[in-house]
Amino acid sequence: MTDHTHDPAARSWVASADHPDTDFPLQNLPLGVFTLRGREQDTPRIGVAIGDQVFDLLQALPLLPALPPEVREALCSPRLNALFALGRPAIGAVRHAVWRLLEAGFAERQRAADALRPQSDVVLHLPCDIGDYTDFFASPNHARNTFNLFRPGQTFLPNFVHLPIAYHGRASSIVPAGAPLRRPWGQVRIHPDGSPQVVPTRKLDIEVELGFYVGQGNPLGQPVPLSEAEQHLAGVCVLNDWSARDIQAFESQPLGPFQSKNFCSSLAPWVVTLEALAPFRAAAAPRESAAPPLQPYLEHPADAAAGAFDIRLETSLRTEAMRQRGEPPVPITRSRFAHDVCWTPAQMLTHHTLGGCNLRPGDLLGSGTISGPEPGTEGSLLELTWNGARPLALPHGESRTFLLDGDEVTLTAWCEREGFRRIGLGRCTTLIRPALEAPY
Amino acid sequence: MTDHTHDPAARSWVASADHPDTDFPLQNLPLGVFTLRGREQDTPRIGVAIGDQVFDLLQALPLLPALPPEVREALCSPRLNALFALGRPAIGAVRHAVWRLLEAGFAERQRAADALRPQSDVVLHLPCDIGDYTDFFASPNHARNTFNLFRPGQTFLPNFVHLPIAYHGRASSIVPAGAPLRRPWGQVRIHPDGSPQVVPTRKLDIEVELGFYVGQGNPLGQPVPLSEAEQHLAGVCVLNDWSARDIQAFESQPLGPFQSKNFCSSLAPWVVTLEALAPFRAAAAPRESAAPPLQPYLEHPADAAAGAFDIRLETSLRTEAMRQRGEPPVPITRSRFAHDVCWTPAQMLTHHTLGGCNLRPGDLLGSGTISGPEPGTEGSLLELTWNGARPLALPHGESRTFLLDGDEVTLTAWCEREGFRRIGLGRCTTLIRPALEAPY
Repeated sequence: MTDHTHDPAARSWVASADHPDTDFPLQNLPLGVFTLRGREQDTPRIGVAIGDQVFDLLQALPLLPALPPEVREALCSPRLNALFALGRPAIGAVRHAVWRLLEAGFAERQRAADALRPQSDVVLHLPCDIGDYTDFFASPNHARNTFNLFRPGQTFLPNFVHLPIAYHGRASSIVPAGAPLRRPWGQVRIHPDGSPQVVPTRKLDIEVELGFYVGQGNPLGQPVPLSEAEQHLAGVCVLNDWSARDIQAFESQPLGPFQSKNFCSSLAPWVVTLEALAPFRAAAAPRESAAPPLQPYLEHPADAAAGAFDIRLETSLRTEAMRQRGEPPVPITRSRFAHDVCWTPAQMLTHHTLGGCNLRPGDLLGSGTISGPEPGTEGSLLELTWNGARPLALPHGESRTFLLDGDEVTLTAWCEREGFRRIGLGRCTTLIRPALEAPY
Repeated sequence: MTDHTHDPAARSWVASADHPDTDFPLQNLPLGVFTLRGREQDTPRIGVAIGDQVFDLLQALPLLPALPPEVREALCSPRLNALFALGRPAIGAVRHAVWRLLEAGFAERQRAADALRPQSDVVLHLPCDIGDYTDFFASPNHARNTFNLFRPGQTFLPNFVHLPIAYHGRASSIVPAGAPLRRPWGQVRIHPDGSPQVVPTRKLDIEVELGFYVGQGNPLGQPVPLSEAEQHLAGVCVLNDWSARDIQAFESQPLGPFQSKNFCSSLAPWVVTLEALAPFRAAAAPRESAAPPLQPYLEHPADAAAGAFDIRLETSLRTEAMRQRGEPPVPITRSRFAHDVCWTPAQMLTHHTLGGCNLRPGDLLGSGTISGPEPGTEGSLLELTWNGARPLALPHGESRTFLLDGDEVTLTAWCEREGFRRIGLGRCTTLIRPALEAPY
């Protein structure tokens, strides 16, 4: 369902918001949390991205008198949790109110302009205190690829078509874009049947994902039906769920990945709301060509089948040599959320609560690695290079299996559709730093 | 290393603290967070258990002028996170200062007595905001039992003797003792090769565990060496990590348990500090009879080999029929932490940080199910009844495989050693409520 805030002809008086390549036109208005550069110790403030600017909602509050008092109070918080807790109506009210202030026809634009800060002058922080981080496993291509790599010839996971598989990740080590990543140490079995050694990972990998923020929470013991699930989702961000494949291979049985994942996850700091995504709804990918019927609790009614979003993702790599030569990053993979993932965010959230698990505002649900079916659309180097067997060719004769120190990885994502303004999710760039010389 | 606060002859002027069966003599002084019954919406306060009383540290603050200002400030908090963040010296300072106020010779006992509240008049809350919850898999008996149940004839987990296996659990659904548990729904394959059905779990189980709270945190990217690990541990509690074995069987491949665990974990609300545990140090269990040498980062120096604690656990069950007949609970299993678990809390913490994962004050590390080697010492009904094949006989002809609605489960734990006062960790009692009639 789209409204006037999706009108592609609508323009902002902020000139940079009309640039055709901007991630942040008037139709987007993603939420974030910032401090001024050089004043990172200040209490963060909530802002909205518009063109190359951040619109400071705390400063703009006097221009937003019609917002309900509880929404105004939430906008004074240093994180988005309080706003998200108020649910979709509150998030929608903020969108509409801010849209009006930034739209070309707004009469008091000078007062509003006082609340603009160049994005180059701010530092963006994690938008929420993330209480729990859950990572799903929801791309059939990714599931097939990893299965064929590690369990060839066995029966494919019997649960994959019946439920969105997930595991709990580490919340403490989630960092915003720009924070560098130190290569982790771990126990690795270098020879398949040998003793493990403690070494810096040799198989440092990306996982191209989206992260969905929980909005309104649910009490412990009270599942959220699918028909209400989207009322509990606030928005989406780009997420890179770093993985160390050699550590993962040794540790993951019987309880799943732990240290191979918990050293870091990086996310783009803007939250694109479900309101902004409305024009880009799409059906999710099929689970399997001959999948059994869904359990009723996971079945979207036919008229609401477009429960996924057509979000395009691109990952690029810039090696240290490329940086020294002044070359731009090269794209290494592209995939699409709705096209390549078979469970909708609503299905993930509903399944998560089936047993009564309580989700809290600001919790993060990772989509899992988003891999397409064709070469060049895999969401990890594990798949792109077939666990290192097929190196990826880069310019000037360089190549990669897994990441090397000095590599810089950038994930971006955006939505585009005929008849609508393109909106972007921003970018998540991370530089790989060498491991500590010794862990202790 | 023990000091005068462990002197078994020391007595408190609080009479109930001298009762030989109390969990909370002067030698214990565990920390908790409480409100007065009927005033649960008040801001919680930090208290210390003494006999059948809670000593209100906020009210007693004027009697503790010698504590450093940052410690005094932390004691005004509604949770223990701020105190734990200050590390072991601060926690030890509080112990010594409170010991002096409650010791029989204290001159101003009337002023101190004003800060006592009967435990029957207070409600105990979660002592910390638990940022992340990690659950280990560290009892060789439990590992062997579950392996023999589900993978008989296969090669035993090659990683078990090399590292403390762990996975991330759900922090949001941790509740304090006394909160009832609603039986969760989930997808279950009732016939081994059939389609899954959505049903209330038929295999609701306990996991008898201890939980270790993180004290001082470590920054992301900075591992904690074993020699410093105990400086990052604050204390221990009793933990029941509820599990739904039928849901677990269907969902756990390839990424580990999720919904089978995230519906609830219950803990006893008192934190027994490492200071109080000092007299009960013990070596951990052997990993395996012919285990390979440890990686150096996990090797306790010989003079600090007593890195575990001799904590005894007992679980009892009271069915609805037993309650109606006015009968007490019956013990169903007993085990011992150091005796039955092969990794020390320090090894768990150090391994957790090997890749740089940051732990935050108040994070919880679960020991994993603590199972002994003999019948009657298994830490789960899965093991006690061999996945339901050998029902447990109860009084009056009742029996159990897994838990039924109306069952009430109590975990307790304590330390005892010749020449020292017995100290207890309190108890964790939970009543099983029926599943919702339908999840949605």
